[in-house]
Amino acid sequence: MLYIVGLGLSDERDITVKGLEAVKGSERVYLEAYTSILMVPKERLEKFYGKEVIIAHRETVESDSDSILRDADKVDVSLLVVGDPYGATTHTDLVIRAHELGIQVKTIHNASIMNAVGATGLQLYSFGQTISLVFFTEDWRPDSFYDRVKENSDIGLHTLCLLDIKVREQSIENMMRGRQIFEPPRYMSINLAIEQLLEVEEKRQQKAYTKDTLAVGVSRLGSDDQIIKAGTLKQLLTEDFGAPLHSLVLVGSRLHLLEAEILRSNAVDLEGLNLVLKRDFGIER
Amino acid sequence: MLYIVGLGLSDERDITVKGLEAVKGSERVYLEAYTSILMVPKERLEKFYGKEVIIAHRETVESDSDSILRDADKVDVSLLVVGDPYGATTHTDLVIRAHELGIQVKTIHNASIMNAVGATGLQLYSFGQTISLVFFTEDWRPDSFYDRVKENSDIGLHTLCLLDIKVREQSIENMMRGRQIFEPPRYMSINLAIEQLLEVEEKRQQKAYTKDTLAVGVSRLGSDDQIIKAGTLKQLLTEDFGAPLHSLVLVGSRLHLLEAEILRSNAVDLEGLNLVLKRDFGIER
Repeated sequence: MLYIVGLGLSDERDITVKGLEAVKGSERVYLEAYTSILMVPKERLEKFYGKEVIIAHRETVESDSDSILRDADKVDVSLLVVGDPYGATTHTDLVIRAHELGIQVKTIHNASIMNAVGATGLQLYSFGQTISLVFFTEDWRPDSFYDRVKENSDIGLHTLCLLDIKVREQSIENMMRGRQIFEPPRYMSINLAIEQLLEVEEKRQQKAYTKDTLAVGVSRLGSDDQIIKAGTLKQLLTEDFGAPLHSLVLVGSRLHLLEAEILRSNAVDLEGLNLVLKRDFGIER
Repeated sequence: MLYIVGLGLSDERDITVKGLEAVKGSERVYLEAYTSILMVPKERLEKFYGKEVIIAHRETVESDSDSILRDADKVDVSLLVVGDPYGATTHTDLVIRAHELGIQVKTIHNASIMNAVGATGLQLYSFGQTISLVFFTEDWRPDSFYDRVKENSDIGLHTLCLLDIKVREQSIENMMRGRQIFEPPRYMSINLAIEQLLEVEEKRQQKAYTKDTLAVGVSRLGSDDQIIKAGTLKQLLTEDFGAPLHSLVLVGSRLHLLEAEILRSNAVDLEGLNLVLKRDFGIER
């Protein structure tokens, strides 16, 4: 059996009891290490499980899936995924390959940013499509996300923005020379995300959002030191959200009274927020 | 401390290790019993936790929150919620009341239908707003959900439809006589949901969807006997999905090749599905 086990959001104790049982019964345990990160090192997982954890990079999961699936028709193997197994990728290739080899696959679900973002006080019902923001480079500043945000905001929905992470990045020189040397990991901050968002609005000018748009920044969701702050993009641009991971929600016009109440409790500037609530949403205290 | 603990989707072992520790350390443990149901009885939870579980009905959580919060500034209390604590409701009133009483609140996240629906093979990124379908009665057949589905389908997004559950329903006679007698619980089936959807399309005629729309029905998600079936609404109308809970996804036009591949593996009629994929999505094998 191949178990694909969601680890949840934060540390080693966010695994479910069912997931932990699968891990303990597995002959090999892989940790998928590219779509997101857990807030604890691999060694802490190993200590907690009482067994070795093998890091599986993107190239392993995508092109060397047979090494993960080896003998999985006879013994149990676990692939650990931060968040829920169906968060960012769906592991389609791996699952299809497993079926071809006659290997049963079982998914053990867990929380991911896609549902835990409800902790911002914004109703999950009122979210439109989710977008991803990637690190801009000098000559690659993709802005197709802008149309997605516009579609959401046109019908009054919130937009969850997932922020880029870069692990195992190679410099062009190292890549060309075939050297397996990697740059330090990078995680996009809420501040940088807002900078990029405003640059694209400046260029596109369709008011999918502006610097006065209400937003909620959230960092290290699910951990003891999670931060949730509500304010305009301009206000959040200079707020400190601490260590990764960061996410950002653009608030849609269909904001409900109860949602506003929670935003108030997370306001970076309550008076300013009340003005925005009145001006943009017609919501008064 | 008040812990609001997500139980996940299916049985007692879907709780996280962190959640289980909170429960074991709590002086009182409440189970919120109205927005969703777990697939196991309360007694199985009690046996697993080694302590009593108090059922908290809607009226308790909403209007008698002080009984839940009693002494929670001195001892730990847990409120268990099926799925994630921020799934259907956000417990706003309870949390605000806790803050007023100087009681700390900690949320322990878990999987919910809102993210686990990725198990259908449809990308979470491509879902629009979620809708709820309620049981139609003779004189109450609300159809405002139709506009929401139309908004999603106009921009090519998938729609997750959550299906009604009725627990602790009173007959009008019992209600008028003030008798605390309740009807047996009812859970909307995928079949009934489709019947209601098609009735509303018949009335509204804006083609938010039709009987030929591709959809995915999913039942008992996260359990060992979960069922996922893809087909047109007309095909799924007569499919047997077994015991509750059921959910339904209407597939949007932005369907991706990889998503189609998984739909094929869940097709009720592969040949028919391939025809629909070609006709409605331009996707060929």
